[in-house]
Amino acid sequence: MNISDIETILNAHSAGSIPTDEAAAKLRNLSYEDIGYARIDHGRASRQGFPEVIFGQGKTPDQITGIFEKLIPRSPNVLITRTTPEVFGQIRNIFTDAEWHESAAMIRVVRDTTDLGLGEISVCTAGTSDIPVAEEAALTAEAMGNRVQRIWDAGVAGIHRILGERERLQNSRVVIVVAGMEGALPSVVGGLVAVPVIGVPTSIGYGASFHGLAALLGMLNSCASNVTVVNIDNGFGAGFAASLINRK
Amino acid sequence: MNISDIETILNAHSAGSIPTDEAAAKLRNLSYEDIGYARIDHGRASRQGFPEVIFGQGKTPDQITGIFEKLIPRSPNVLITRTTPEVFGQIRNIFTDAEWHESAAMIRVVRDTTDLGLGEISVCTAGTSDIPVAEEAALTAEAMGNRVQRIWDAGVAGIHRILGERERLQNSRVVIVVAGMEGALPSVVGGLVAVPVIGVPTSIGYGASFHGLAALLGMLNSCASNVTVVNIDNGFGAGFAASLINRK
Amino acid sequence: MNISDIETILNAHSAGSIPTDEAAAKLRNLSYEDIGYARIDHGRASRQGFPEVIFGQGKTPDQITGIFEKLIPRSPNVLITRTTPEVFGQIRNIFTDAEWHESAAMIRVVRDTTDLGLGEISVCTAGTSDIPVAEEAALTAEAMGNRVQRIWDAGVAGIHRILGERERLQNSRVVIVVAGMEGALPSVVGGLVAVPVIGVPTSIGYGASFHGLAALLGMLNSCASNVTVVNIDNGFGAGFAASLINRK
Amino acid sequence: MNISDIETILNAHSAGSIPTDEAAAKLRNLSYEDIGYARIDHGRASRQGFPEVIFGQGKTPDQITGIFEKLIPRSPNVLITRTTPEVFGQIRNIFTDAEWHESAAMIRVVRDTTDLGLGEISVCTAGTSDIPVAEEAALTAEAMGNRVQRIWDAGVAGIHRILGERERLQNSRVVIVVAGMEGALPSVVGGLVAVPVIGVPTSIGYGASFHGLAALLGMLNSCASNVTVVNIDNGFGAGFAASLINRK
Amino acid sequence: MNISDIETILNAHSAGSIPTDEAAAKLRNLSYEDIGYARIDHGRASRQGFPEVIFGQGKTPDQITGIFEKLIPRSPNVLITRTTPEVFGQIRNIFTDAEWHESAAMIRVVRDTTDLGLGEISVCTAGTSDIPVAEEAALTAEAMGNRVQRIWDAGVAGIHRILGERERLQNSRVVIVVAGMEGALPSVVGGLVAVPVIGVPTSIGYGASFHGLAALLGMLNSCASNVTVVNIDNGFGAGFAASLINRK
Amino acid sequence: MNISDIETILNAHSAGSIPTDEAAAKLRNLSYEDIGYARIDHGRASRQGFPEVIFGQGKTPDQITGIFEKLIPRSPNVLITRTTPEVFGQIRNIFTDAEWHESAAMIRVVRDTTDLGLGEISVCTAGTSDIPVAEEAALTAEAMGNRVQRIWDAGVAGIHRILGERERLQNSRVVIVVAGMEGALPSVVGGLVAVPVIGVPTSIGYGASFHGLAALLGMLNSCASNVTVVNIDNGFGAGFAASLINRK
Amino acid sequence: MNISDIETILNAHSAGSIPTDEAAAKLRNLSYEDIGYARIDHGRASRQGFPEVIFGQGKTPDQITGIFEKLIPRSPNVLITRTTPEVFGQIRNIFTDAEWHESAAMIRVVRDTTDLGLGEISVCTAGTSDIPVAEEAALTAEAMGNRVQRIWDAGVAGIHRILGERERLQNSRVVIVVAGMEGALPSVVGGLVAVPVIGVPTSIGYGASFHGLAALLGMLNSCASNVTVVNIDNGFGAGFAASLINRK
Amino acid sequence: MNISDIETILNAHSAGSIPTDEAAAKLRNLSYEDIGYARIDHGRASRQGFPEVIFGQGKTPDQITGIFEKLIPRSPNVLITRTTPEVFGQIRNIFTDAEWHESAAMIRVVRDTTDLGLGEISVCTAGTSDIPVAEEAALTAEAMGNRVQRIWDAGVAGIHRILGERERLQNSRVVIVVAGMEGALPSVVGGLVAVPVIGVPTSIGYGASFHGLAALLGMLNSCASNVTVVNIDNGFGAGFAASLINRK
Repeated sequence: MNISDIETILNAHSAGSIPTDEAAAKLRNLSYEDIGYARIDHGRASRQGFPEVIFGQGKTPDQITGIFEKLIPRSPNVLITRTTPEVFGQIRNIFTDAEWHESAAMIRVVRDTTDLGLGEISVCTAGTSDIPVAEEAALTAEAMGNRVQRIWDAGVAGIHRILGERERLQNSRVVIVVAGMEGALPSVVGGLVAVPVIGVPTSIGYGASFHGLAALLGMLNSCASNVTVVNIDNGFGAGFAASLINRK
Repeated sequence: MNISDIETILNAHSAGSIPTDEAAAKLRNLSYEDIGYARIDHGRASRQGFPEVIFGQGKTPDQITGIFEKLIPRSPNVLITRTTPEVFGQIRNIFTDAEWHESAAMIRVVRDTTDLGLGEISVCTAGTSDIPVAEEAALTAEAMGNRVQRIWDAGVAGIHRILGERERLQNSRVVIVVAGMEGALPSVVGGLVAVPVIGVPTSIGYGASFHGLAALLGMLNSCASNVTVVNIDNGFGAGFAASLINRK
Repeated sequence: MNISDIETILNAHSAGSIPTDEAAAKLRNLSYEDIGYARIDHGRASRQGFPEVIFGQGKTPDQITGIFEKLIPRSPNVLITRTTPEVFGQIRNIFTDAEWHESAAMIRVVRDTTDLGLGEISVCTAGTSDIPVAEEAALTAEAMGNRVQRIWDAGVAGIHRILGERERLQNSRVVIVVAGMEGALPSVVGGLVAVPVIGVPTSIGYGASFHGLAALLGMLNSCASNVTVVNIDNGFGAGFAASLINRK
Repeated sequence: MNISDIETILNAHSAGSIPTDEAAAKLRNLSYEDIGYARIDHGRASRQGFPEVIFGQGKTPDQITGIFEKLIPRSPNVLITRTTPEVFGQIRNIFTDAEWHESAAMIRVVRDTTDLGLGEISVCTAGTSDIPVAEEAALTAEAMGNRVQRIWDAGVAGIHRILGERERLQNSRVVIVVAGMEGALPSVVGGLVAVPVIGVPTSIGYGASFHGLAALLGMLNSCASNVTVVNIDNGFGAGFAASLINRK
Repeated sequence: MNISDIETILNAHSAGSIPTDEAAAKLRNLSYEDIGYARIDHGRASRQGFPEVIFGQGKTPDQITGIFEKLIPRSPNVLITRTTPEVFGQIRNIFTDAEWHESAAMIRVVRDTTDLGLGEISVCTAGTSDIPVAEEAALTAEAMGNRVQRIWDAGVAGIHRILGERERLQNSRVVIVVAGMEGALPSVVGGLVAVPVIGVPTSIGYGASFHGLAALLGMLNSCASNVTVVNIDNGFGAGFAASLINRK
Repeated sequence: MNISDIETILNAHSAGSIPTDEAAAKLRNLSYEDIGYARIDHGRASRQGFPEVIFGQGKTPDQITGIFEKLIPRSPNVLITRTTPEVFGQIRNIFTDAEWHESAAMIRVVRDTTDLGLGEISVCTAGTSDIPVAEEAALTAEAMGNRVQRIWDAGVAGIHRILGERERLQNSRVVIVVAGMEGALPSVVGGLVAVPVIGVPTSIGYGASFHGLAALLGMLNSCASNVTVVNIDNGFGAGFAASLINRK
Repeated sequence: MNISDIETILNAHSAGSIPTDEAAAKLRNLSYEDIGYARIDHGRASRQGFPEVIFGQGKTPDQITGIFEKLIPRSPNVLITRTTPEVFGQIRNIFTDAEWHESAAMIRVVRDTTDLGLGEISVCTAGTSDIPVAEEAALTAEAMGNRVQRIWDAGVAGIHRILGERERLQNSRVVIVVAGMEGALPSVVGGLVAVPVIGVPTSIGYGASFHGLAALLGMLNSCASNVTVVNIDNGFGAGFAASLINRK
Repeated sequence: MNISDIETILNAHSAGSIPTDEAAAKLRNLSYEDIGYARIDHGRASRQGFPEVIFGQGKTPDQITGIFEKLIPRSPNVLITRTTPEVFGQIRNIFTDAEWHESAAMIRVVRDTTDLGLGEISVCTAGTSDIPVAEEAALTAEAMGNRVQRIWDAGVAGIHRILGERERLQNSRVVIVVAGMEGALPSVVGGLVAVPVIGVPTSIGYGASFHGLAALLGMLNSCASNVTVVNIDNGFGAGFAASLINRK
């Protein structure tokens, strides 16, 4: 639907030919804004309290800032993932209070900090090198109104490290586990807790890790039944899904 | 830990050398029963209200019934997945009220039907051939105390079929989407709802589906951010994880 | 070389106007020109109204311009695909009116703009990042005498975006659908229209997209029966095949 | 959409609150019939002159006959693909004039034989073993109102065999090329004709053919620009897409 | 053939007690016996105290018994791996005291039970279904003169099960860990012990386990540095290598 | 059809002894015989002294015997590869002296035993289980007029076995090496001889052999420069190519 | 476990509430030091005489030096693998006597040179290009108290090169074999010696070596039973495991 | 080292002219020269008239020149493959008449130009981009004493281009066919000639060519029986093997 469609609905409503609730319903399922290289889906994010999100990879800086300018007047919280310091330079010119998160390569605007969660979200990593992906998850979950606790470098080869965090994990509402190499940590964590676990395989490793394939297959074949999986290095998706699970 | 370890704890407790809460804590994290070919993890299921589950594939009928006999006195609900009518013949001799679910190849005992869910779980399939995997998910979720609604054969090539179910989907607490071939349905459903979606790729297809690989990769690369994924044909895992998400 | 050409030679030979060895040579040499590093197939393109096409990738700039110089006197329209601004600099010295298309990395000469199509060709993308591949398809189709309409960023996670274009799609003679990640859009479009759909998987994505493999497998397994597929990122091939389908 | 939705539209129409053309439009895009294990998309096939098609693989005989019974009163032509003589036994009890095609494993009902094509469709195979897949394509195209010519066993290792058919190929409106092993025939045919070519890789071969993967990759990488590809062994899809290309 | 054998021949030759051509023949023939379809390498096994081993898969029953008849007079211990009850029937006719091990599909002759090990070898499995492969390892190690302790069904999703065996594992000289699905157990065991760990991936699992590939990749990418890996389901190789490590 | 055949037709045509359309027909039809399901390429085999070959796999028994009946009057030697005892039963009814080779699953007619080779062809296997593929190579080479020496079970783990055959190998004109599992034998043999080596990977192995992929990749990456490779289990192709290399 | 947990144990011990041996046991299995981005597992390395090891790849220079500063006061020997000259520049500022090993890209501190081995460890390579990985193995084994002999460039295509080293290999306690391309050397060496062989596939090669996959699969399918395998290019892991095998 | 060398040593030893330990040393050392990072196999190349070859990739410039200095005094012809202009700069300082071949990235010394071939070797490419690999083959074959004819850019999509070269191909003793993308040309050429064909897949292509995998699989599955295959981009190996086939 393009902008003229939206205007048709608004005019019909203001002319009294359709009632308010019908106009709202129409807009809820149909609205987007076409700016040529992108169709921005305002309706979805604004109606559900989600932050607006721009996936930066594969877009030109001008496309990113063009979309950002459309989003910032409507949404209190905005994320730009997989982006660069150069883009941040341009974004800061548009909106001074944008944050740059180096490790996650993310730009973030957080103006609404309402707590929307039933409980806490824990984010664990198997190793130090997995932290950037885990930070993407954590920053996303925070921007979506959650309290997040971070547990870094607790891989299975030193099993006492994750066992030492058992209590914190068991008190979480959902746990995100980020691991490369053999990707075994979600299975162990899954066996320790009675809540949903989201596994995030990372591309950390070499040789037969095949850029995260080993970790991905490991998590998909987890012998713990409460583990679901997202794409390799997809910290954002894990943070997003965990936020929906934790939503009041 | 073997049974003598458990006895040591019990004796220490009864002798007063460790207090009750300490004994309980020890048992909660440590207990299992070793019957030679299997170590049955009673503690976990019984303390959390989960049904006991036996993964049937790869076990001999005698191993399955041997484990079942240990479970049935302790757990009100028991599932045996990926099993056969022959095993069901043996199980019925042990416990008359066991149910046989042909399409999912599952044996089920459900004695506790308490509703434990915050809302409803929807289970959708893209095609008719995906129903067995979807039934495994649905039967699991029911056994774990959830209300389940089934939506079969609503694949994306006739998009109005899933759009016609939009309202039911939007009112669910979590949606399980089961699809083979290109595995596109979770992305479409993910874009329609504001709740977690669990994608279950199936091995339905031929040629370049590579036994479910195409659907699996499709779901992992979903452009909808609320989709997480389980193993190919893993209806049980999807039902289990959905139940935890929906747990009050 | 077509059958009538062969008969012409046979008849000339039988009439004695050309000797046997010359007939053999003609049969061998007529239809291409050997310039050492390339055998240019003039016959085919000139007789069928196709533009001449140079696939730029893997050729040196000198090879590209060498071939271009042979083509430009014979063919009104010429395309150089997968090339660079540097090559464009050299080409412009040879032929001033050549166009440079940045997003598709294509050089184009269009001197014949006759409309050769039965109807319109629609080119859609799932995301903003897929536009370069889609532009390659659109520019090719235009150079081959077609009217093209572009529909960008209408992926399945916001299904109303493509549904809003249903009418335009249904009025097309053929639809090209360009998508990365899970590659689900061709299935949805295929279900909406009663014309051939050509799916173009792109390498847009990360992790388990495996450089476009996920999208490719998705499209090959499409549950819509009117979808055929070309190589990953092969916008040119899609534009070419669509033009033949649309040829009067 | 379920049946009550359809009734709502019909009642509104009969009550005069929506005009006939609007009711028709609504039904055209929305209608299907839900029979539990399947949602039959009557609207699409009946309005476009397509035969109804049941993909037999993965469905129980009862599901196939159940769907068939719903289709046969509405559609003159019906196909059941990838099925068995056993199913044919059941189908013949429902509809006596159904045909059984052993080599393609297809059941076919053809009551409407109107010629709907602009020209002829050629179907070629590289080898004798590819004939079953090619027959599936040919039978489908015939059921969709096309004249089909069959060219069997003309693989590239004896190149004169396909060259001997050049004229017939060049006079076709579209060519389907079916090949296993290295899948090279579509490239050669593509270079001989100026019409669209649809490549169908087959699983014929052994060892490093990897069940058709070699042929599939070969066709996707064709150096002939007019080749598009369908799934391995997907004769039906090729016949279907070719029919749309050839549609008047 | 070791270096001293070569010197013996050289000296005999130089002393003139054997002519040049005979010396050459000895050098060529000494160390194996050619029976047409097999060259039996007697030298190696007999001189090093290894059992003779026949890999049964892919050999006809007559070939197996033919080789067995050559081995049994020379070697006290003989193993036939990956074989069948039918072959056992034939073997028992040749040598009455051969043992049949159903779970490992192995025939075994053990006449020399000398303890050759420095310590004990532990063999663990992640699940009940992994026992056959583990038994192949254990039976091999026993036949090679080792004491073996078996620890079945101690997978990582119930981490207390393997932790409960920590002391036994730490007192072993080498540990074999057999696991399918995600193959995570070797990493955990590797972190608990200071001895070599041999990981044996099994083909137990389904879907994205890809017949053991997931477990194999998991073990190869183990974050525990003391883990080496053998082929999928290669219990024999693990038992063999562990025996060499444990050799006094 | 070779160039002199073409010239003969051209000259006959130019001399007026055949009309144009007949010349065209001859050019098209001369070199193969179309029997519906197969186009038999008589010209090639008969003029070059090759045996006629029917690849049995994927053809029905009737197709095989139908093709055989066309070949047997024209060609002294005929091979049917990858076939069955059942087909042999039918073939023997047509031609009594056909041979059945159980291990290679090949039917063979050899009436012309002229020696066409420059030297001998050696065929080696790494193991006993590789013999069937090696026999296919050896039987093919013999039928094509070569002397063949067989060297079975000389794999690299007992390196003295192949070293003991060094002289025979070095005196061959070409060596075929057949190996499964890691496929290392061609590299070793390649380093021992100064003649071409053809590696034939076999599907013998299990687990990470992936049906011969490991052996195939091993041979393709051989560090010996004189090794070329054919498809997995393609003994026929190796025997055929070796015969051409050895052709006087 | 964090540092306060360690303090609790120490205080309890000093207060006399737990005896010394119990405190030691607790610390042995539980201790690590949490420095935010890493949990350093001091207990394991210090109690077993292993060097401390930092896997450099994927860590920032500041993270590496931060961990190094924690390790150097406690451990006589420290390794930093897969690192850079830049990191070495920073490390040398902290500890002057650190060594830089260019070919292995390793930083090493060796202050304890006690011989801990039963015998010698041999490290072989197939080619010159495999030396960097082999050096990583050799340097690791030396740092763990072993005598190491290096045998470079002895690949199977010139089999006399490795045969010439047979005696040295047979006198080793364990052999590490490093090879790229087809990875055949471990099988040959495995057949020559009666000790454990660790195969290290390398990414040396091109084309169908697929970055070491060919060598990896080759080694996993070794026909020599004493070969176990580590990840592609994992010289460190091979050196570590070999050291444990050789440990007195 | 060949068998006569061994006998010479044995006889010298038996005659007492060399002692036992010296005989052993000769047997071990005669045939290669150990320069630390490489064992140069002089014996093989010098006695057989092959050029010495250094595979440049993965070796440092100093290693390459170090080996070159050892080779140049002994061998009239020397090749350095996969190298760089920088290395050529160093080589020219050692030997002034070395040639640099830009397109093949090869350094070549040819001092012996004796014709060693039975006939001519043809080298064809499918496209212009395949020329560098083909040049590597051609330059190698020339250095090994062969006459070579080059046929560039004759791919199957313009089949008349290769048909036009039929006569030259049929008069060759062996044909090398170099092709990327779908790799179909070897099958077509194989069907045209009665001599051995060596297929060289190249990494030319994009998307689903997967760096040459598509071409490799295509060639391995060739329906022409006279095609054998070498590694992707392995022009050198093809030229080497062709030279042995053509050797008088």
